[in-house]
Amino acid sequence: MLGCGRIGRMHAELLTLRAPGATCPVVYDVLGEAASAVAAELGLDAAASAQELIERDDVDAVAICTSTDTHVDLIVAAARAGKPIFCEKPLSLNLAEVDRGLEAVAAAGVPFMVGFNRRFDPSHREVRDRVAAGDVGDVHVVRITSRDPAPPPLTYIAVSGGIFCDMTIHDFDMARYVTGSEVLEVYAKGAVLVDPAIGEAGDFDTTVIVLTHANGAMTVIDNSRQAVYGYDQRVEVFGSQGIVSSDNPLVTTTTVRDGRGGRVAALPYFFLERYTQSYLSEWEAFVGMLRDGTPSPVGPADGRAPLVLGLAAGRSVAERRPVSVEEIT
Amino acid sequence: MLGCGRIGRMHAELLTLRAPGATCPVVYDVLGEAASAVAAELGLDAAASAQELIERDDVDAVAICTSTDTHVDLIVAAARAGKPIFCEKPLSLNLAEVDRGLEAVAAAGVPFMVGFNRRFDPSHREVRDRVAAGDVGDVHVVRITSRDPAPPPLTYIAVSGGIFCDMTIHDFDMARYVTGSEVLEVYAKGAVLVDPAIGEAGDFDTTVIVLTHANGAMTVIDNSRQAVYGYDQRVEVFGSQGIVSSDNPLVTTTTVRDGRGGRVAALPYFFLERYTQSYLSEWEAFVGMLRDGTPSPVGPADGRAPLVLGLAAGRSVAERRPVSVEEIT
Amino acid sequence: MLGCGRIGRMHAELLTLRAPGATCPVVYDVLGEAASAVAAELGLDAAASAQELIERDDVDAVAICTSTDTHVDLIVAAARAGKPIFCEKPLSLNLAEVDRGLEAVAAAGVPFMVGFNRRFDPSHREVRDRVAAGDVGDVHVVRITSRDPAPPPLTYIAVSGGIFCDMTIHDFDMARYVTGSEVLEVYAKGAVLVDPAIGEAGDFDTTVIVLTHANGAMTVIDNSRQAVYGYDQRVEVFGSQGIVSSDNPLVTTTTVRDGRGGRVAALPYFFLERYTQSYLSEWEAFVGMLRDGTPSPVGPADGRAPLVLGLAAGRSVAERRPVSVEEIT
Amino acid sequence: MLGCGRIGRMHAELLTLRAPGATCPVVYDVLGEAASAVAAELGLDAAASAQELIERDDVDAVAICTSTDTHVDLIVAAARAGKPIFCEKPLSLNLAEVDRGLEAVAAAGVPFMVGFNRRFDPSHREVRDRVAAGDVGDVHVVRITSRDPAPPPLTYIAVSGGIFCDMTIHDFDMARYVTGSEVLEVYAKGAVLVDPAIGEAGDFDTTVIVLTHANGAMTVIDNSRQAVYGYDQRVEVFGSQGIVSSDNPLVTTTTVRDGRGGRVAALPYFFLERYTQSYLSEWEAFVGMLRDGTPSPVGPADGRAPLVLGLAAGRSVAERRPVSVEEIT
Repeated sequence: MLGCGRIGRMHAELLTLRAPGATCPVVYDVLGEAASAVAAELGLDAAASAQELIERDDVDAVAICTSTDTHVDLIVAAARAGKPIFCEKPLSLNLAEVDRGLEAVAAAGVPFMVGFNRRFDPSHREVRDRVAAGDVGDVHVVRITSRDPAPPPLTYIAVSGGIFCDMTIHDFDMARYVTGSEVLEVYAKGAVLVDPAIGEAGDFDTTVIVLTHANGAMTVIDNSRQAVYGYDQRVEVFGSQGIVSSDNPLVTTTTVRDGRGGRVAALPYFFLERYTQSYLSEWEAFVGMLRDGTPSPVGPADGRAPLVLGLAAGRSVAERRPVSVEEIT
Repeated sequence: MLGCGRIGRMHAELLTLRAPGATCPVVYDVLGEAASAVAAELGLDAAASAQELIERDDVDAVAICTSTDTHVDLIVAAARAGKPIFCEKPLSLNLAEVDRGLEAVAAAGVPFMVGFNRRFDPSHREVRDRVAAGDVGDVHVVRITSRDPAPPPLTYIAVSGGIFCDMTIHDFDMARYVTGSEVLEVYAKGAVLVDPAIGEAGDFDTTVIVLTHANGAMTVIDNSRQAVYGYDQRVEVFGSQGIVSSDNPLVTTTTVRDGRGGRVAALPYFFLERYTQSYLSEWEAFVGMLRDGTPSPVGPADGRAPLVLGLAAGRSVAERRPVSVEEIT
Repeated sequence: MLGCGRIGRMHAELLTLRAPGATCPVVYDVLGEAASAVAAELGLDAAASAQELIERDDVDAVAICTSTDTHVDLIVAAARAGKPIFCEKPLSLNLAEVDRGLEAVAAAGVPFMVGFNRRFDPSHREVRDRVAAGDVGDVHVVRITSRDPAPPPLTYIAVSGGIFCDMTIHDFDMARYVTGSEVLEVYAKGAVLVDPAIGEAGDFDTTVIVLTHANGAMTVIDNSRQAVYGYDQRVEVFGSQGIVSSDNPLVTTTTVRDGRGGRVAALPYFFLERYTQSYLSEWEAFVGMLRDGTPSPVGPADGRAPLVLGLAAGRSVAERRPVSVEEIT
Repeated sequence: MLGCGRIGRMHAELLTLRAPGATCPVVYDVLGEAASAVAAELGLDAAASAQELIERDDVDAVAICTSTDTHVDLIVAAARAGKPIFCEKPLSLNLAEVDRGLEAVAAAGVPFMVGFNRRFDPSHREVRDRVAAGDVGDVHVVRITSRDPAPPPLTYIAVSGGIFCDMTIHDFDMARYVTGSEVLEVYAKGAVLVDPAIGEAGDFDTTVIVLTHANGAMTVIDNSRQAVYGYDQRVEVFGSQGIVSSDNPLVTTTTVRDGRGGRVAALPYFFLERYTQSYLSEWEAFVGMLRDGTPSPVGPADGRAPLVLGLAAGRSVAERRPVSVEEIT
């Protein structure tokens, strides 16, 4: 495990305690204390450098959960060491850098998987499976709502690459995943409705994006950095033969009714509460890919395409017009 | 229309304005003013006596919606006049009286239908249809919840025949309807938890009843005179191959979510709000029976059996033991 | 009642049989047979001309449910006769014509209401009321899905003015209604995914529209002429303090479960099944406006603004760019 | 951990990998192989005898998950060793034995908790909390449905003590838990509708039970050994001010709609899928009790009372009459 921040720590714990067929012998973080803390808590080693970790004999595969700007160098290092790679999203904010990393992966021929965990959520996956099975016919319109409960720190926003590459990137991936069709055109609207400071940092906190797919389908995405009612994550695919959708789970199944109506439970607060199962299934898929030599469920092209869409969205909102993905190179 | 109280007035209005294939030329009520008011409002005649109404040439069928103690005499009069009969529940509180009425119906050979409207509610009917189609296999356990929003006046309770014959009688009918199986044994518990005055009137306001059917299935019914959250009407049939249930509708489909959870709409307040469609379908079924000469969807036996169960429940609660329906004659 | 097509016939029946405080003494249709049929069925008069109907003493108000291209002339005629006016949507497909009609209304000072019935649906209205009450705070994103079960005849499509003015116009009204904020900019995408003949007729059958409101909120609308699962009508308003949404009702509350999962009921098939209550409440509002002299709940400005948005959407899709409403005059 | 069968193995795994603040150093099972297997899988010791385990210095508390007939001896042994005790339900099938065990616990003054895990399910707990907070007023009627997906082996049924003490015991506990009121009277009906062999073994597979509480409330329980649609676990409390209920969760939030209606996900298959969170919270409560010296959330009286009700239910069904708990001693 490279990276012991919030997401790296979570992955290390899942790998150590819960993911079948996997263990995590060693962690690393540029902040030595962060690595030591996770290592101590889980009974693991802490490596002195990323390279030391990559080269260890008991490391069969490398998980890259560091800050985005370090991903590509680590991908290259792991690929050169011949180690299979799991890398968190986005691979980079720079398309040329992404290509450099993916070329190293291709040259080394190592298995490679991108951490788009929502593909492994049972509800969203069921949406994709139904579409792929033809249950809704040809896809006409996809609706994706993705809202966080609260904005990240402004310091994070400043280095996030902007909401389209940081947050919407999951939805771009979802649009490709559930439709099985590439995106040709992006139209994006951005607004600052939650916190003016986010606007001052050059970013948006509320967005609407319209995608046009190669198969003619249209996807509508809306994002917000702040939904006070919880982590709102919904996907819906409407087609010629029907509709399939994944709704939000609730934290309990309890309902109260009195003379004023009914009260039902809240949504999960955030991704740790909502997507733990998806992270476990993600590791199961990674382990299965290595064990069985099967193609990556989230391969190199799945790492590149959403970044192109994120960059296209940025240009669209800046130039107030729909942008063809061909314009982004 | 014989009877211009709450239910008679409603039926007269539905027949006049909304029931396809039916009209209501004339109404009667023992309180002349009640009849006059309904007649004036809907542009109908008011008859001077029940017999006059029954004998009118433009009266093709008689609807008996008067107080329970007058039902049987009116059934006999209408049967003797050769007029098809619709009679509200219960036919009588006295089994011998019921038999007297039904014998007149049989002797005259007139079509006869009992007003168990819930059979015509689309959701409950779907439950029955699925069971009849074998979708849940052999029936094992039926659960019926039936709760009113507020108790009727104590004056009504005093002449109601008790909660089992007045209120539970709908649920006894539902149990027979959805299972298609007669009841062999009744066990009832009664309590006074809503209003001590109901207990002082010799009745209960909260009850639980267990029925054993001829096919081995068991039905559990619970009743209350007062559910502050609205008119709670649910039926559920569990069997060897699955389960089918009808839940309460809500008055809107609107949901509100904020930081404290979600709020959903209220239940319909009472039967007028909940069961209008069932009353319309009931009249459609009555008209269809007359037009096509088909068997009654709620025939004489369906009028007698629930009264037997109501009487058995009364004995069960009094004697604190399960009572076989064979004991009630 | 002027116009005895599908919608005029429905309104005539509701006014005659069910709308409290209203009657419909006379109908007219350019097809004499259509008027005669409705008149005969409901026991009404059939007028020989629109003008004759408008001038009748027992006509207190005029309902215009004819084909769209005749609306304005009839508005003008009714206004000149000093009769209050109910007019179905859209008022016209031509903005200058709309203005001519509304000027006549203003000059005559007659009460005027546009038939945007969805405002009177209890579930959508609750959405608006919650937003107006501040329950969701400042509005950030509105999602409106509106899908018909099957396309209208091609002959209708040819004269419909296009999907944006014929179908989306309801959603444009809804966006203004629930947000209480005018729209400044429209971006629209159109596709032909249901039936190529619709494209050959110069129209789209599947659309996505993004609106930007004066208060900063964004509305996303998606439309389809064909949802095989029924009439899909949903509205959702997300704001700084929460979210409120109206979901589709189902035709029953029955659920079946077996070893393969659960099955729930279908959506209402189309507007007659879904919106009857809204039409009744619409008439109740119209009658109340006349009786109490209150402002129109759907006044002249509410008839004009959605047409502007429909025209802007048409231009947006043609020119592949967002269009400011200021461009439409 | 004493006992390495299905439930003991699950608890050992939860304690080792997931329960905060707890570890499981050593396991024991009368079948040495079972203990060795669990010990090897989780990296634990396997004790040669229960006594050896109980006496180990690194054993701060003893979890008794062995077969029911061994519970009391182990309770006594652990109590004499001064070790806090967690014991699975039922404590015993024999009331005198239960009393012997609880006397040893009282004499030793060791903390003691019974494994009624459903109390720790977030949805059921919310039901109890709302009732305790007075949100539904005085309790009138409780409905509890509890159905397993498939019967256990007949060999298990033969030693289970019967469905009332083996399965309904959870529901007896739930009835006491959510109402906060003891039970005075039990009426039970039993049927053999699933498998005749269960009847031949002297047991029932389908039951309905009516409880009368000291506070006047009535509880209705229904059980089945076989619900082909999954593990059906619902609790509902109806009172003078409202109703609160916990419904079944579904395995996904995905819905599919086409021309035939809607399809929703299945229920969890069984308790491992449904109640994992409750087991974790149960351990959290146990650890918290030891750490803070707080009263047991499921103490000795909670272990005894449900057995009394199970025995009363057995007598009720045998004698076909309601049975007072005072009759059971």
